[in-house]
Amino acid sequence: MASSQPNAKALKRQKFEAVFPVIRDELVEHLTSQGMPLDAKEWYKKNLDYNVPGGKLNRGMSVVDTVEILKGRTLTEDEYFKAAILGWCVEFLQAFFLVSDDMMDQSITRRGQPCYYRLERVNYIAINDSFMLEAAIFYLIKAHFRGQPYYVHLVEIFHETTFQTEIGQMIDLITAPEGHVDLSKFSLEKHRLIVIHKTAYYSFYLPVALAMYMCGIAHTAEDDPYALAQSILIPLGEYFQVQDDFLDFAGTPEQIGKIGTDIIDNKCSWCVNTALALATPEQRKLLDENYGRKDAACEARIKALYEELGVRRRYADYEEDSYTRIMSLVEKIPETDARDGQVTLKREVFEAFLGKIYKRQK
Amino acid sequence: MASSQPNAKALKRQKFEAVFPVIRDELVEHLTSQGMPLDAKEWYKKNLDYNVPGGKLNRGMSVVDTVEILKGRTLTEDEYFKAAILGWCVEFLQAFFLVSDDMMDQSITRRGQPCYYRLERVNYIAINDSFMLEAAIFYLIKAHFRGQPYYVHLVEIFHETTFQTEIGQMIDLITAPEGHVDLSKFSLEKHRLIVIHKTAYYSFYLPVALAMYMCGIAHTAEDDPYALAQSILIPLGEYFQVQDDFLDFAGTPEQIGKIGTDIIDNKCSWCVNTALALATPEQRKLLDENYGRKDAACEARIKALYEELGVRRRYADYEEDSYTRIMSLVEKIPETDARDGQVTLKREVFEAFLGKIYKRQK
Repeated sequence: MASSQPNAKALKRQKFEAVFPVIRDELVEHLTSQGMPLDAKEWYKKNLDYNVPGGKLNRGMSVVDTVEILKGRTLTEDEYFKAAILGWCVEFLQAFFLVSDDMMDQSITRRGQPCYYRLERVNYIAINDSFMLEAAIFYLIKAHFRGQPYYVHLVEIFHETTFQTEIGQMIDLITAPEGHVDLSKFSLEKHRLIVIHKTAYYSFYLPVALAMYMCGIAHTAEDDPYALAQSILIPLGEYFQVQDDFLDFAGTPEQIGKIGTDIIDNKCSWCVNTALALATPEQRKLLDENYGRKDAACEARIKALYEELGVRRRYADYEEDSYTRIMSLVEKIPETDARDGQVTLKREVFEAFLGKIYKRQK
Repeated sequence: MASSQPNAKALKRQKFEAVFPVIRDELVEHLTSQGMPLDAKEWYKKNLDYNVPGGKLNRGMSVVDTVEILKGRTLTEDEYFKAAILGWCVEFLQAFFLVSDDMMDQSITRRGQPCYYRLERVNYIAINDSFMLEAAIFYLIKAHFRGQPYYVHLVEIFHETTFQTEIGQMIDLITAPEGHVDLSKFSLEKHRLIVIHKTAYYSFYLPVALAMYMCGIAHTAEDDPYALAQSILIPLGEYFQVQDDFLDFAGTPEQIGKIGTDIIDNKCSWCVNTALALATPEQRKLLDENYGRKDAACEARIKALYEELGVRRRYADYEEDSYTRIMSLVEKIPETDARDGQVTLKREVFEAFLGKIYKRQK
C-alpha cells in the first residue's frame, strides 16, 4: 500500500500533464486561424512550453482533485478533461504572474532554469509574452465552457482573482522595494494583507471555486457555499505562505530545493515581521542596519537575531494554532447528503489541502 | 457656424473627461473595500491619473459618438454615463498597452511627459501597474453592466481584442526587434498583419462593437451586423495606421507633434515595406545598410531613397484607393428604418470615422 503511493501520485501527475500539449496546440492553432506566420506560432509555442508546465502543478491538480471529491466518484473522460483545462488555466495564471514577477524582481533562475526574460532574444518581449499567457485563459474558457450555465462565473472569478493578486503584488512592491530598506513600512498586519491578496486567493480559493462551479454548486443569498469555502481557504493560504516564509529561513537547501534569499532581498517575510514585533530598540537597530543588504555577514546577523528572538518557537506555535483554527472551521461545514444528484461542499476538500500542507518541510 | 465647431468639440471632450474622476475614484474605493492602506490607494490613483487620461481620447469618445449616431438622438444622462464608461474602458486598454509598450521599446517620453516606467520609484513596478489598468476594465464592466443581456458580449470582446492586439504586438516585436535589423522579415503582407492585429481591432472595431452591444444590436447567423462592421473598420484601421506610418516620415514636427523615429528605430513601417517592394538590388543594399541605425546620416539616406522611389506618390494613390474602397463598402450597408425602437447599423457611423481620418495631416 505505502509503496504504491508514490507511483499513484506520479501517474496522477502524468495524466494531468498529458492534457497540456492538447491545450498548447489548440492555442497555437488559434494563431494559424489568425493568419500568423510560422515564426510567430513557434514563438508562442516556446513561451507556453517554457513557462506553463514544469512547476509543482499543485494548484492545477487541486482543481481536478476537488472535482473528484465533490462528485464523490471517478470522473468521466470528458469531466476529467474539463476539470484539467480549468486546472491548467490556474497554471497559466501562475505563469503569467511568475514571468512578470521575475522581471520585476530581476530574478536569475526559476524552476532550475534561467528566468524566461533572461533568454536571448526574449528580454523585454517577456512582458507581452506574459500577457499572452493571461489571454490564453479566457480563450480556453470560452472554447470549452461557452455553453455552460456557470460560464460567466468562471470568467468573473478569474478576473477577480487576477485583480486581487495584482493588488497584493502592488502593496508588496511598494512596501518592500528591492534595495530600499524601510522596515517602518512592515508589520504583521501588512504581511497578512500582502499574503492573502498575493497568494491565498489564486492558490487556494480559485482552484476550489472553479471546481465548485464545474460541479454546479450554486451561489446562495444566505450561507453561500463560496463564501464558506473562502472563509477557510484564505486562512489556509495565509498559513501556507507563512510556512513558505519560515522555510526560506529555516529550511535546508535540500529541503526547499533552493537557497533562501528573503533576508538579502528585503522581502516582507513573516520572519522579519515577527522579529520586528518582538525586538527591543537595540535589536530593531540591528534589523534596520542589516536587513535587505547584499552581504552574507548582514544576513547571518539577521538569522542569529531570529534565533535569539525565538522565531522557530513562534512559528511552531503559529502552525499549531493555524491547524486547530482551520480544522475547527472545517468541522462546521454541514455534511448534507447530495439529493437529486446535487453536489454540495464537503469537508474532505479542505482536509485534503490541509493534509498536504500541515508540517510540510519542502 | 464654423467658429462654433472648435468650441463644441472642446465641450464634448470636457464632458467625456469629467467622467474619468468618477471612474478613478470608484477604482480607488475598491482598494478601500479590500482593506488596502493609504499608500497603496495613492499609488493606484497615481497610476490611473498618469496613464489613462491625457491622450487624444479619440477611441474612447468614438464609443459615445457611435451610440449617439445609432440611437439617432441625444443620450439620457444614464445612457451617456454608460457609453462613457465603455469609452473609458477602451482608454484603459490603450493605457495598459502603452505603459508596457514603452517599457518594451525603452521609450523616453509619451504625451509630452516621461514614460511612466521612467518615473522614480516606479521602474519595473510599471509592469504590475499596467496589469492593474487592464484589470480595471473588467471591474468597471461588472460594476456597471452585470445585469445587462449584452454583459457577456462586452467581456468577450475585450478579451478577444486584447488577445488580437497582443498577437499583433508579438509579431511586431519578433519581426522588427530594436537594434537587430533583418529586412528579409519585412513585407507589405507582414505589415498588414501587424497593423490589423496591433491597431485596427482595438482602435476601430472595438469602440463600434461596444456601442452596438450597448444599443442592443443582436448577432445574427446571416449578415451579422458585427461582421459587417468589422469588414469596414479593419480596412479603415489599416488605412489609419498606414497614414500614421507615412506621417512619421513625411509630416513636419509641427503637424505630428513629435519627431518621427521609425527609420532609426527599425520599425516595420508601411514606408520601408513599400520601398522594399520597389527597390533594385542596389537600393536594397542601401536599405540593409542604413535602416534601423542610430545615425542621422543613415536616416537621411533612407529618406532620400523614399523620395527617389516615389513613396509620396504611392501613398497618395494608396489613400485615394483606400477611401474609394471603404466608401463603397459603406454604401452597401442597408439603411433599414428602425422598427419597434430597434436600433440598426448606420452608414453614418463609418462616415464619421472616415471623415476624421481622410487626408488628415496630424
